[in-house]
Amino acid sequence: MEQNKASASIPPTKRVRCIVKLGGAAITCKNKLETIDEENLKEVSSQLRQALIPNSDSAKVLGMDWSKRPGQSEPPSFVDEFSDQPVVDSESFIVVHGAGSFGHFQASKSGVHKGGLSQPLVKAGFVATRISVTSLNLEIVRALAREGIPSIGMSPFSCGWSTCQRNMTEADISMVIKAIDAGFIPVLHGDAILDTLQECTILSGDVIIRHLAAELKPEFVVFLTDVLGVYDRPPVEPGAILIQEIAVREDGSWSVVKPRLEDTSKPVEFSVAAHDTTGGMVTKITEAAMIAKLGIDVYITKAGTDHSVKALSGILKGSIPDDWLGTAIRYMS
Amino acid sequence: MEQNKASASIPPTKRVRCIVKLGGAAITCKNKLETIDEENLKEVSSQLRQALIPNSDSAKVLGMDWSKRPGQSEPPSFVDEFSDQPVVDSESFIVVHGAGSFGHFQASKSGVHKGGLSQPLVKAGFVATRISVTSLNLEIVRALAREGIPSIGMSPFSCGWSTCQRNMTEADISMVIKAIDAGFIPVLHGDAILDTLQECTILSGDVIIRHLAAELKPEFVVFLTDVLGVYDRPPVEPGAILIQEIAVREDGSWSVVKPRLEDTSKPVEFSVAAHDTTGGMVTKITEAAMIAKLGIDVYITKAGTDHSVKALSGILKGSIPDDWLGTAIRYMS
Repeated sequence: MEQNKASASIPPTKRVRCIVKLGGAAITCKNKLETIDEENLKEVSSQLRQALIPNSDSAKVLGMDWSKRPGQSEPPSFVDEFSDQPVVDSESFIVVHGAGSFGHFQASKSGVHKGGLSQPLVKAGFVATRISVTSLNLEIVRALAREGIPSIGMSPFSCGWSTCQRNMTEADISMVIKAIDAGFIPVLHGDAILDTLQECTILSGDVIIRHLAAELKPEFVVFLTDVLGVYDRPPVEPGAILIQEIAVREDGSWSVVKPRLEDTSKPVEFSVAAHDTTGGMVTKITEAAMIAKLGIDVYITKAGTDHSVKALSGILKGSIPDDWLGTAIRYMS
Repeated sequence: MEQNKASASIPPTKRVRCIVKLGGAAITCKNKLETIDEENLKEVSSQLRQALIPNSDSAKVLGMDWSKRPGQSEPPSFVDEFSDQPVVDSESFIVVHGAGSFGHFQASKSGVHKGGLSQPLVKAGFVATRISVTSLNLEIVRALAREGIPSIGMSPFSCGWSTCQRNMTEADISMVIKAIDAGFIPVLHGDAILDTLQECTILSGDVIIRHLAAELKPEFVVFLTDVLGVYDRPPVEPGAILIQEIAVREDGSWSVVKPRLEDTSKPVEFSVAAHDTTGGMVTKITEAAMIAKLGIDVYITKAGTDHSVKALSGILKGSIPDDWLGTAIRYMS
């Protein structure tokens, strides 16, 4: 899919268990400029801790964000307790987050995705977009660190990732691998990056996930969103049906295997045209299908629910319980 | 000095005019945990704008930080005015900043510089240090962007820089070069990074500067600090003399050429032992001398003064005016 120079030669010594996408809509307040949904982010971080450090006790978590908190002038006092901590080897996860209400205004106002850095508006928008998305990245790294997750923020721009006419051409993941091997949880994000043909563009979190999945072959990928999963029509419409399982075939085509319509015992049928107007659902499935085609299970579910706990734990890899609500996209040979 | 793999093959198309070190003490409140000296940072940013974009008018600056300001819910309204802006090609500068009251507590408490990531305290300290220094980096990038400087934060960790037993072994500067060629001002910082032998360490801003200077051969390097320059003893002591000019010879040795003691017409003499107890002055001169030996002028002066304006403008390259207060360290063939 993408050409990659350096990563192929440095396989990670630790197998990556899971790549998690924190959807922008799940962790930010979508219609409030640059506002984090603190409650959701805290819940998501706590669930990630449980998945990363099984049997961890929330009451005993020692946070790794030692910055002073607003209104305080001293760092947290628990820092001295670390010396008595046992060594905990966490699972290898990678977190990638979207932008939500961060970066969007700056990018769309200036048209960074269309390129043209010689235009003052685009150049300023590039700078403004990076400020906005890196400030969200910092807050997510902080939230994860407060849960005792050894999170490390990594910007695609700084990692040297770039595109050519919006196709990813350079994305050396050796630093991501080194961070994982050192026991950290890399936290990447959608970013404004350089493009060799159009000078600059926006690299989305979904494209990052696809690239990392292809290179690192994680056991599974989880997309945490603000809805339960993929529906056959916008979920606010009456009668919208949650698609629970999609099978992807060798040629990249996909079909719904669950639920089956009761009267025909056939998969739900829907036309592509209908979906393209319903918030990019086909795009979402197509992205997920490209990952599933590699033999990697993809689970799309709502952040901060029992269903996301199950998805992150990896127990869905065997069979999907009937009461799990979400969309599983899997390869069918 | 340091081995570098990729950078040698990609020379920048733009010559770097200046590398500026923003000393931690100059932009943060040294004894107040994680507190920025907002007034100083604003003044330094304004002076940098004047150096980068000569003849720029402070009243007409359109900021590049479009994030909402505290207490506001809307982005700044001036964004629409960018379309009427002329294209401005700024000078090629690189900014590197220290940590000051950011990162220091986290790093020293955990001993990140000594390595040992398998110890829970060190691992947590690594995460906490990166959170602290990247939050300072973001604030500096914001301050520069508000002055219309196209600043781009770049973390040495994310750039893939690492050391072996604290000696820099991998520091691919190709991304720094690409950012400069695209018209941006990279803003790097002292960081917690991986070390192939001791697992992790702290990479200081001064080491970054030395590496960048050796690779990029800027016209000059400016260290902005909280004192006027290098003195013959701690500047708080009575009778401390500001050393205005130091000459560095081919073999790396250096001597004071200005001021000369009036009664002997000889350079000021001082013993190395005496300085080692006076806040690392010899270390500072030695670092600067290594850069000067490359034929690159180094100016150490107080941030936010008329003297820093002169140093940043490059006019000291010819001759140093008698009323300039600071320390110039230059190669003498």
